[in-house]
Amino acid sequence: MKHRIAVIPGDGIGIEVVEQGLRLLDSLKLDISYQKFNYDANRWLEEGVGLTDSELENLKENFDAIYFGALGDPRIPDSNHARQILLKLRFDLDLFANVRPIKLLNPDLTPIKLSSGQTIDCVIIRENTEDLYRGIGGSFKEGTVDEIATDQRIHSYKGVERIIRYAFEFAIKHNRKKVTLVDKVNVLIYGGSLWNRVFEEVAEQYPDIESDYMHIDVAAMRMVTDVHLFDVIVTSNMFGDILSDIGAGIVGGLGLLSSANINTETIGLYEPVHGSAPDIAGKNQANPMAAFITLSMMLADLGYPHAQLISAAVEECIRDGLTTVDLGGDLTTHDITDIIIDKVTKQ
Amino acid sequence: MKHRIAVIPGDGIGIEVVEQGLRLLDSLKLDISYQKFNYDANRWLEEGVGLTDSELENLKENFDAIYFGALGDPRIPDSNHARQILLKLRFDLDLFANVRPIKLLNPDLTPIKLSSGQTIDCVIIRENTEDLYRGIGGSFKEGTVDEIATDQRIHSYKGVERIIRYAFEFAIKHNRKKVTLVDKVNVLIYGGSLWNRVFEEVAEQYPDIESDYMHIDVAAMRMVTDVHLFDVIVTSNMFGDILSDIGAGIVGGLGLLSSANINTETIGLYEPVHGSAPDIAGKNQANPMAAFITLSMMLADLGYPHAQLISAAVEECIRDGLTTVDLGGDLTTHDITDIIIDKVTKQ
Ligand SMILES: CC(C)[C@H](C(=O)O)[C@@H](O)C(=O)O
Ligand SMILES: CC(C)[C@H](C(=O)O)[C@@H](O)C(=O)O
Repeated sequence: MKHRIAVIPGDGIGIEVVEQGLRLLDSLKLDISYQKFNYDANRWLEEGVGLTDSELENLKENFDAIYFGALGDPRIPDSNHARQILLKLRFDLDLFANVRPIKLLNPDLTPIKLSSGQTIDCVIIRENTEDLYRGIGGSFKEGTVDEIATDQRIHSYKGVERIIRYAFEFAIKHNRKKVTLVDKVNVLIYGGSLWNRVFEEVAEQYPDIESDYMHIDVAAMRMVTDVHLFDVIVTSNMFGDILSDIGAGIVGGLGLLSSANINTETIGLYEPVHGSAPDIAGKNQANPMAAFITLSMMLADLGYPHAQLISAAVEECIRDGLTTVDLGGDLTTHDITDIIIDKVTKQ
Repeated sequence: MKHRIAVIPGDGIGIEVVEQGLRLLDSLKLDISYQKFNYDANRWLEEGVGLTDSELENLKENFDAIYFGALGDPRIPDSNHARQILLKLRFDLDLFANVRPIKLLNPDLTPIKLSSGQTIDCVIIRENTEDLYRGIGGSFKEGTVDEIATDQRIHSYKGVERIIRYAFEFAIKHNRKKVTLVDKVNVLIYGGSLWNRVFEEVAEQYPDIESDYMHIDVAAMRMVTDVHLFDVIVTSNMFGDILSDIGAGIVGGLGLLSSANINTETIGLYEPVHGSAPDIAGKNQANPMAAFITLSMMLADLGYPHAQLISAAVEECIRDGLTTVDLGGDLTTHDITDIIIDKVTKQ
């Protein structure tokens, strides 16, 4: 076997879409084996365990990529297990680049009035290991009327430099013209200053790529009013989280958004951006497209030309209006998968 | 004289729109006097001063409201003077509620495909004195490859309680049905927990108002895809900053968005949400509508029924497509003002 994939379906519709993703993978008959892991809500509730260090070590040592579904269960307040599992994977595998392509596949799907011929095609490169996500902070006099709570945004030169460099390298590799830094330097005086200084330093080394800066508030607005301004966006963890959901919103919703959590030196984790959607779980209604695009991103990074077959099949389906109910169609999760499998195996 | 207004025009188009706002105010012949203050970029550059404590004291002691333009000057990196002046006003006058109505006045102005008859009408109540805005944080080994930069999100029970209570009171006063808390409790474990606990506590005291919670990433997306879900939004300073710009985006841009920075026990500061727009400053092109709606919000809070005349005149103009170039029209800043003055004085 050439490649080994660790599969973490997770909860809710995560389980369903990953199952269909694996059917699709099987149909390609590639030299890839996979193994499933139950790092999910049930285990958390039954055993009180998220993901142990030795399990993490196993993933790192014995697999070439991780194919992930979604975490989230209404029985667990604040999605505590999601934080323990997903963020542990991102942090401890040092998956510093969260790459989220924002691409409109069918003009009918955007809630935005585009001028004719206009399209949406940009990429968000989100820093994935620092920022407010680290859980650094505390509560003083918790539960009293004197309570003070703090959460820290933390950034290192190393962390900021590597993600900015990754964004410029990405721009070159994918023939993109511009990298936009998004932050809030007029308010976040320490981290904002670091991001801006490093951005200038790195941008100078890529004279063929245009570069500019935008405040997060303005960028969030312009994603809606002037999305053509964006090509590659590089930003911090929290701002990237927000911008990528807006990105999902303008191309047809989370059912179509995929992400690759990357560290080129270790292992990649590939996940749809959507959550576990407990309300529709188990009903054969979930949109599996994000899971398919996710699979395609994973196969591309592993060097399989079949990645292209999958993304083409997905684009065709979406273009032809063959969709699940979230996008106005009437196809089930399973039906859509059959169609995609049919397309990729017929080529 | 019954009321005294402190006017801070600021920089760029702030100066122009406030000038037109004052022409409009003059035309109403109310028992209101005003005085201008040059807390702006020129003074910052010439004297190195933003706003002193005794000047602040003067505003607090001798005025009933502050009418503000916009700050921002390309000669000053990171808009340092804006932070020193605007944030000092917000913090030291303890203007804890930043109220930003998001209302679509003409369906042609939204970049969003609305279903026919659908409208946009919600209000963002943004906490205005805490959060990442306080400038708490630091740099370790600044300027080296070992640099670590932190910015702290800080929230107090007192600060969170009063803004949430304000939001529910606002809902009751303005006949609104629902208050939505926006935060990121699955990541911001300390502050997010505080916001959620206090929200539940306060919501219980307003059984007639519906309440729900949404993560900031989801809320940012739904502002675009499902804005009808929102009525009153209450959120922290940074998330409110982002959501209100998205709000501006979906109702025609910053040229139409106004805000009231409120502390019911002291003094209110009224400002358009837009910036100083140095690129179009001095060209008689700026859209003064936000400054007019701002004036209207101020007059309403001071108890003048004329507030209603202004907002009606603005709505009429916008509905009839009488706009400046940013909204596709061809009227100048001055022309628009003439039209509005004509409308309010003819009533
Ligand atoms: C589940 C949650 C912790 C996660 C995040 O905030 O990163 C999700 O919103 C995402 O965007 O991947
Ligand atoms: C100028 C800036 C500091 C300000 C903010 O971030 O609050 C502005 O964006 C706003 O929304 O009023």
